[in-house]
Amino acid sequence: MMPRLNETYFENDMNNNQHITSLFRPDVQRLTGYIPGEQPQESGWTKLNTNENPYPPSPNVVNAICKAATSPLNKYPDPLVKHFRELASELFQVDPDWILPGNGSDEILTILLRSFVDAGESIAFPYPSYILYGTLAEIQGAKYEHLPLNTDWSFAPGAKQIARRSKMVFVPNPNSPSGNCWSDEELHSLIPEKGIFVLDEAYGDFRDSPHRGEFLQSEFGKQTVITRTLSKSYSLAGIRFGFAIAHPDIITGMRKVKDSYNCNSLSIAAACAAISDQPWMQKNKEAICKTRTRLAKSLSEFGFDVMPSQANFLWCTHQEKPHSELFEQLKQRKILVRYMKFEQAGPELNQTVDGLRITIGTDEQIDTLINALKEMV
Amino acid sequence: MMPRLNETYFENDMNNNQHITSLFRPDVQRLTGYIPGEQPQESGWTKLNTNENPYPPSPNVVNAICKAATSPLNKYPDPLVKHFRELASELFQVDPDWILPGNGSDEILTILLRSFVDAGESIAFPYPSYILYGTLAEIQGAKYEHLPLNTDWSFAPGAKQIARRSKMVFVPNPNSPSGNCWSDEELHSLIPEKGIFVLDEAYGDFRDSPHRGEFLQSEFGKQTVITRTLSKSYSLAGIRFGFAIAHPDIITGMRKVKDSYNCNSLSIAAACAAISDQPWMQKNKEAICKTRTRLAKSLSEFGFDVMPSQANFLWCTHQEKPHSELFEQLKQRKILVRYMKFEQAGPELNQTVDGLRITIGTDEQIDTLINALKEMV
Repeated sequence: MMPRLNETYFENDMNNNQHITSLFRPDVQRLTGYIPGEQPQESGWTKLNTNENPYPPSPNVVNAICKAATSPLNKYPDPLVKHFRELASELFQVDPDWILPGNGSDEILTILLRSFVDAGESIAFPYPSYILYGTLAEIQGAKYEHLPLNTDWSFAPGAKQIARRSKMVFVPNPNSPSGNCWSDEELHSLIPEKGIFVLDEAYGDFRDSPHRGEFLQSEFGKQTVITRTLSKSYSLAGIRFGFAIAHPDIITGMRKVKDSYNCNSLSIAAACAAISDQPWMQKNKEAICKTRTRLAKSLSEFGFDVMPSQANFLWCTHQEKPHSELFEQLKQRKILVRYMKFEQAGPELNQTVDGLRITIGTDEQIDTLINALKEMV
Repeated sequence: MMPRLNETYFENDMNNNQHITSLFRPDVQRLTGYIPGEQPQESGWTKLNTNENPYPPSPNVVNAICKAATSPLNKYPDPLVKHFRELASELFQVDPDWILPGNGSDEILTILLRSFVDAGESIAFPYPSYILYGTLAEIQGAKYEHLPLNTDWSFAPGAKQIARRSKMVFVPNPNSPSGNCWSDEELHSLIPEKGIFVLDEAYGDFRDSPHRGEFLQSEFGKQTVITRTLSKSYSLAGIRFGFAIAHPDIITGMRKVKDSYNCNSLSIAAACAAISDQPWMQKNKEAICKTRTRLAKSLSEFGFDVMPSQANFLWCTHQEKPHSELFEQLKQRKILVRYMKFEQAGPELNQTVDGLRITIGTDEQIDTLINALKEMV
């Protein structure tokens, strides 16, 4: 009988222990690692912390998955994900070879870094925004700079110059955690001189007037990669499916970097069914936007400053109560929101910005939150 | 109405076109890209080219997927894939923190390169074996060396020295395309002095006596990462699920490099059901091994030299007929096998080795192949 291996198996071998950790790339040794929002696996939580859609996906998705479950799963999936690309190409009015599917848009971001950014080169992204961009740069051995933002979340004067000299610029639009959108004119000023502009539209469907790839038609279109996910608007965070839209020259190169079979037969089936049911997605979007308006009003009444949002979450700051305390008090009531703190932010990158990012849930979930806040503030 | 974007959209802008391709990292520009075996999407093919299992996965897998389809797919999956790790840890007699699940074992290989191998460093792997190792090194900006093999697929004298100086050594055991296994003693001689040894057990379950993590108990255990996949023995190439087994110090570091949610709720459910049904996997393994014996005998009768195999495929060479012609003749009959040609192989890395790698299908599929060969040779 073989002994079970546990953490202490090599404990008498301390030198070797030291040795192994030092085999990691120095960039990886230094890395803290990206910490996603908490994902409690037990039930009973009002989960408003990771911008998931509170509504289920289209019923067609369930049927498509069950059908795929009895398809030949012993065979590899289609490495080019042809069917999904055809469907997405109709929606975005591009040819299918402008589409690259991925295992979540996080994988698309990873592929972008690995395709275009060499060790020592520098990327840039607005700050505060999605922290993962910086983590991915660090893994790649690259550097990153923050594009400074004014208090109203417009770009501060220094942003343009930093963006212009970067190898890759990431801009989430709408932005997280703020929920605001920047205009195409503002974005055009951030196109790198010799680099790739990534327009991260993870929350794009929640806008009043969603983009449909128009950005690619501008003179900067060939340098631009739009990233999209089915996690948010299509209620499919669980299946990990995102995609890039860009000129075929870009897609072809990125395809060399991705794993051959990066999407699986089940998630492909689910994604195809979801993107084909636009009315379902639109209905949920409208419900979320309506609830968002109601929550924003309540939060204002409780003394919060609420940033107008084009996404499925609200960024709010309170004039009196410390945000970390509010977060903890809500957590004690089994309500999870996201407390976020950004050091060295602001137009001069020398202020601390913190606040609460609250995902828009169902009306019932938001009532639970409002009732809790009533007792607290 | 927005015009549809197609490949010619920027055609009057040739300078810009040139400019964009040159934005890729030089390593990616040089890259040919790994070319997986053909995956015809239409039916009617006898597909014996990508080492898929010809039998369906456990019926429990179908049920688990349909159940997961009605679970909250709007929520992110468990980023640590706790349930699968617990199941795999029982099977391999290690603690759950020795297990890292991935989106196919190809993703695990990618994470290994990105975790341990810096640009300019060098990896090594037997040649001929899995060509993807070299592609992943190139993407990472790393170099690779081939470990030379004798005609009988044992390691040639130069192999040990190359392996010892490498940052990472990959050894598939059983090997592909040859199907042979190397002994633990042979493998021990290939452990790098200051590097990671990756024991790729994609085909490990087809061995007469499969490993169950024993290799990790040796004095080289802390430097070793075993990779496993559910694509082959568990008939689940379609769901993309593999995992690494290694000391927690290694797993913890690799976890920083992987995407947070690299496995999806559906494939996790399928993987848990599959690994829990060991009798199903064993039954299919036995059927495959029996068919393998029968095919090997037939191939010998047709004048092939057949390498004894511990995997779900056979490597064979013909004494008279050119292998590429045999491949084409079979393809005309809608039978796909894998024609493989390796330049600069052999003990001195100066010979050309080619042959056919034939996946073991059902008895019916193998009869189709045998009947075709009867007409051909």
